[in-house]
Amino acid sequence: MSVTAARGFTASGVYAGVRKKPKADLALILSDREASAAAVFTRNLVQAAPIGVCRTCLERSGGRARAVVVNAGNANACTGPAGERASWATVEAAAAQLGLPPEQVLVASTGVIGQQLPFEKLVAAMPEAAAGLSPEGGIAAADAILTTDTRRKESVRVVETAAGRFTVGGMAKGSGMIHPDMATTLGFVTSDAAVEPSALQAMLSRAIERSFNRVTVDGDTSTNDMVALLANGASGVEASKGAEAEAFEAALTEVLVELARMVAADGEGATRLVTVRVTGARDEQDALAISRTISGSPLVKTAVHGNDANWGRIVAAAGRAGVALEPEALTVKLNGLAVLEPGYRSSYSEEEATELLKREEVVIEVDLGAGPAQATTWTCDLSKDYVDINASYRS
Amino acid sequence: MSVTAARGFTASGVYAGVRKKPKADLALILSDREASAAAVFTRNLVQAAPIGVCRTCLERSGGRARAVVVNAGNANACTGPAGERASWATVEAAAAQLGLPPEQVLVASTGVIGQQLPFEKLVAAMPEAAAGLSPEGGIAAADAILTTDTRRKESVRVVETAAGRFTVGGMAKGSGMIHPDMATTLGFVTSDAAVEPSALQAMLSRAIERSFNRVTVDGDTSTNDMVALLANGASGVEASKGAEAEAFEAALTEVLVELARMVAADGEGATRLVTVRVTGARDEQDALAISRTISGSPLVKTAVHGNDANWGRIVAAAGRAGVALEPEALTVKLNGLAVLEPGYRSSYSEEEATELLKREEVVIEVDLGAGPAQATTWTCDLSKDYVDINASYRS
Repeated sequence: MSVTAARGFTASGVYAGVRKKPKADLALILSDREASAAAVFTRNLVQAAPIGVCRTCLERSGGRARAVVVNAGNANACTGPAGERASWATVEAAAAQLGLPPEQVLVASTGVIGQQLPFEKLVAAMPEAAAGLSPEGGIAAADAILTTDTRRKESVRVVETAAGRFTVGGMAKGSGMIHPDMATTLGFVTSDAAVEPSALQAMLSRAIERSFNRVTVDGDTSTNDMVALLANGASGVEASKGAEAEAFEAALTEVLVELARMVAADGEGATRLVTVRVTGARDEQDALAISRTISGSPLVKTAVHGNDANWGRIVAAAGRAGVALEPEALTVKLNGLAVLEPGYRSSYSEEEATELLKREEVVIEVDLGAGPAQATTWTCDLSKDYVDINASYRS
Repeated sequence: MSVTAARGFTASGVYAGVRKKPKADLALILSDREASAAAVFTRNLVQAAPIGVCRTCLERSGGRARAVVVNAGNANACTGPAGERASWATVEAAAAQLGLPPEQVLVASTGVIGQQLPFEKLVAAMPEAAAGLSPEGGIAAADAILTTDTRRKESVRVVETAAGRFTVGGMAKGSGMIHPDMATTLGFVTSDAAVEPSALQAMLSRAIERSFNRVTVDGDTSTNDMVALLANGASGVEASKGAEAEAFEAALTEVLVELARMVAADGEGATRLVTVRVTGARDEQDALAISRTISGSPLVKTAVHGNDANWGRIVAAAGRAGVALEPEALTVKLNGLAVLEPGYRSSYSEEEATELLKREEVVIEVDLGAGPAQATTWTCDLSKDYVDINASYRS
């Protein structure tokens, strides 16, 4: 149910004609009451028009929102003042249709860069999108934001606390141009908990740091990355502080980690989810730097694709992460099988390793033998389909 | 003639049996007199055994050497103390065969990581390698150091100065695990100029910074990278300072840039050399950071492979380089054709762009419109063959 799992939210997904393929490309999310809103945006200096429009809306509304409108098929990036006008036109059309002030509507786009957004198609489809809003519409919305994704991405957690029950649900699109720097995709999360905007923003920023910011598909940070979170309080549970806030942040992190793993597993051309867990580090930053470098290595990713237990590439990637390490202290495990032990000892069955690497998820564990800290990142294997998809993306 | 173009150098390449394929895998270079020697090594913290052995030799000899011995087929990396002993055994066998003190022999290895080097095969082949040494042997040596390379890489410059004529010639291997951090491959350069070791090292370090350190194939920095330079003075031209030093450094930089471009053009699976020139930067560091980020982008590289003038990906890569820039000031040219002009103006013929992108070399020019500085890096396109080669490298 993704973004409509929490009480008070409806959503829809319709085909407005922005993308060539006749597949839904316009998603709308509505809260039946004002919600606290928080968002994180790409750190790429080249930022798509909707990013700037969202910042302005959140500033004007003091961190409150009622609706989110998203299109796929066109990123509205590198489109200049005309692109800004197109995003505002989209926001205004949604606001007028829903009877809201424009600053309570967030907007996001994903798709090809450098082409003007045919916003008039979005405007024309807005009545249909509004008419389609329903408490079951989370699935249609989750489908409408996908680009080269092969699978819908949604995640829901229902949380019981002493103060009552609330729900956190979200959806995401992923696939290409995915690399951890702030939010590296589009993600939308809703909750019926009541959370003050400033607390909501702090919790979202921390949760993103441990989820979307730890995914890479190809090292390319998008111009459109954004994760937005709306909490409308419909559950009656106040979760701005105390045990409820802790439960809310934990559920939010779980939802975002689940979505982030789905983004990695469905990276362009991917056949396997790869989880890279680095343990035994002096501190978390060291563990994270090494985990990220391994996740980003095309040689590691192609080896996984070929079911090849090529631990030398994993160790070589660790060595270029910019972190002090003792190469001879390293342990490397692939789905639990130790392929390298300290002192560069390596004795394992290649057949067993190859079989383990064929699993849907490959867990690479690297222990540095230097301390108590750890970190995990996620990526996918690198296949010929990634090249196929991206050599012909615009054609 | 690569490393034997300069006077006083002989070389050979023979098959010792380290690699499975019966293709020469042992190269030997000899100077007929003591030469000044300089080298740069990988900055990866995981360093292959020969790297440590070379450092020790250069320290003991005070930057002088007579010979270089190189094997392909096995990197002798992540092999612990046994690997170190294997490199020393190789050095000692070459030294004994040639009647030299061991510290005057440099050693390098390239190939698979994490397997013990069968040094006894190198030792057994040393008499044949020594017997084969000849002034025409530079070609056989350049062939013997290749791994997944498809083409021999050699470059020669003959320099006329007021003090006389000297020659700088070199060879390299490239292909995979290629990313700019110190010397990112194996390269060997010889000259008959006379240069003091400390001047030689300074000139090599500067020239590497403008050549090999500006190449990337896949972002993976190898454990074995090394470029070594021997100058034996056989020309009688003293080039440690003054106009001759300038001429020497210029020729050295040209040779290394030519070799670096060959390494990029012959990257694993590559069909095109991609030159990324960033101009109009505030300073060279900014230009270099952006050029490197574009060179490293798999989305840019797949677009080139698909003859797709996808300038949005080039701009998106520039925006995540960590350098302040004004997106709307950017100009992007592909083989001379302006596909993006300031103010996000873009009007060009897709057909013309596609034709231009089919050339053997694709020059991507990005002007930042912010200052006078520029920098160039080199890479290759990303093809399905890269995935094929690396999904099955060890099998």
